[in-house]
Amino acid sequence: MAVDPWTLEQIRKHIDEGLPLTRLFNIDVLEAGRDRARVRLGEGAHATRPGGSIAGPVQFALADVVTYALILATSHDPAAVTVDMTINFLRPAMQLPLVAEAVPLRAGRRLFTADVRITEQPGGRLVAQATTTYALSGGTPALTGDPGRV
Amino acid sequence: MAVDPWTLEQIRKHIDEGLPLTRLFNIDVLEAGRDRARVRLGEGAHATRPGGSIAGPVQFALADVVTYALILATSHDPAAVTVDMTINFLRPAMQLPLVAEAVPLRAGRRLFTADVRITEQPGGRLVAQATTTYALSGGTPALTGDPGRV
Amino acid sequence: MAVDPWTLEQIRKHIDEGLPLTRLFNIDVLEAGRDRARVRLGEGAHATRPGGSIAGPVQFALADVVTYALILATSHDPAAVTVDMTINFLRPAMQLPLVAEAVPLRAGRRLFTADVRITEQPGGRLVAQATTTYALSGGTPALTGDPGRV
Amino acid sequence: MAVDPWTLEQIRKHIDEGLPLTRLFNIDVLEAGRDRARVRLGEGAHATRPGGSIAGPVQFALADVVTYALILATSHDPAAVTVDMTINFLRPAMQLPLVAEAVPLRAGRRLFTADVRITEQPGGRLVAQATTTYALSGGTPALTGDPGRV
Repeated sequence: MAVDPWTLEQIRKHIDEGLPLTRLFNIDVLEAGRDRARVRLGEGAHATRPGGSIAGPVQFALADVVTYALILATSHDPAAVTVDMTINFLRPAMQLPLVAEAVPLRAGRRLFTADVRITEQPGGRLVAQATTTYALSGGTPALTGDPGRV
Repeated sequence: MAVDPWTLEQIRKHIDEGLPLTRLFNIDVLEAGRDRARVRLGEGAHATRPGGSIAGPVQFALADVVTYALILATSHDPAAVTVDMTINFLRPAMQLPLVAEAVPLRAGRRLFTADVRITEQPGGRLVAQATTTYALSGGTPALTGDPGRV
Repeated sequence: MAVDPWTLEQIRKHIDEGLPLTRLFNIDVLEAGRDRARVRLGEGAHATRPGGSIAGPVQFALADVVTYALILATSHDPAAVTVDMTINFLRPAMQLPLVAEAVPLRAGRRLFTADVRITEQPGGRLVAQATTTYALSGGTPALTGDPGRV
Repeated sequence: MAVDPWTLEQIRKHIDEGLPLTRLFNIDVLEAGRDRARVRLGEGAHATRPGGSIAGPVQFALADVVTYALILATSHDPAAVTVDMTINFLRPAMQLPLVAEAVPLRAGRRLFTADVRITEQPGGRLVAQATTTYALSGGTPALTGDPGRV
């Protein structure tokens, strides 16, 4: 039986409810499809590090959330968990908003790997790159109920 | 001229002032010396992910802060910046406090690399491991002034 | 039904037959148990890089083989495959033999993650560190036949 | 004084002389410019792993050599050394030749980071992805002499 893909609204609601730090850091899901997902970091408190640039953990959060949105759109698996992530901080991120875009490298039955690029907007200067692997839960999730319940 | 090491109080003050997300997530520096540093994540809002475990970005923040504390104690370089980090999420972190401990793998002139282990306390169950490299600023920082100013 | 662990001789034979570059690079399995495995790189051709130190790919081979030996001893799964590896080259490796030691960080049902340290011998100077994750095949391998057949 | 870029022939000669495992594995530099470099793995002995696919260390060698070729073409620094690499093995590589392509993510004064993709040819199926950081030697190398001398 085919599984209906989650709508963007369902993905936003699920992430907002399940991951309170997205609200805290002011992260919005802009887009989530089979080929790519994008999230944006807007103005907010608490996001800087010594020197005034956007702190690494906030950029890590962007990379993690955008990959999770991609998985929700592609593999429909809210119980997927991060196995590992490697993040390269290429240049100081001095200007908001930041946009993180994830594309799939592997969309397997058990493992999902994405490439993530974080850029300053407007301008598109690349500030960070990450690759991350998630373990999928394996079972096809029932999507007829409330997708917010994990 | 020899540089006086930073005291634990100076390191705490510098991190609290420069990195507001430590206060937000309730991260405290327990210890910072040449051989290891330790930080603790206490009870706090905003830290969970779908499923109820401690979110990856919060664990990333622990690993990043503990390495920064180790660098402040070892290389006295507040202008050091994270080049990259690889973090492995080994088991769901279900119980607070978490403690992250960093030890140096390379304390070079230009690069500093640390191994970080994150454990649940009490009990000591390992929940995550990370390796991270920082670029040192190269100049010996002036420590006669306010170490909080970077 | 319990599975008999592979003996060190079975592990050596399986690796020699399946992975010809171990012979090429002169890599020997010294030890393989549930808690750690160790391999040694002896004198051999082809192993250096510009500057005269041991080339990165040879050190990567050490880290990959020692983890595979650890998995054979721990999870008895010859069909395990490398998902990813992060390797940090900490200092030039100028002196042989090198010894790589792997210890488990996660020995799960589906994923196996190890920490690997490569040192110059004698002396024990740390030259590289790696973390690597393997995907296990999931099925219990039949060990009554020839373990060299994968 | 401007530094003349290395020609493809100089890069090939330097790599062949300095890194004997490229000859051993049958790795050829196809292209090396400021924007990308490409290398090819041809038929050869010793390259397989249990199961018959191309062994991880051979793919690591491809990623390492193609990044070194990119650095020689971009930063003209034969004394550059690998700091770290993260490699994701996405699918078994069953068919030769493999082609690895590297593009720069950061071409800094002290650090160089590249993204590498390894594909089966013909067909272009992606089998591995890597990111790697090199430390540059900092000094502008004298290119008037024999570039093979490092």
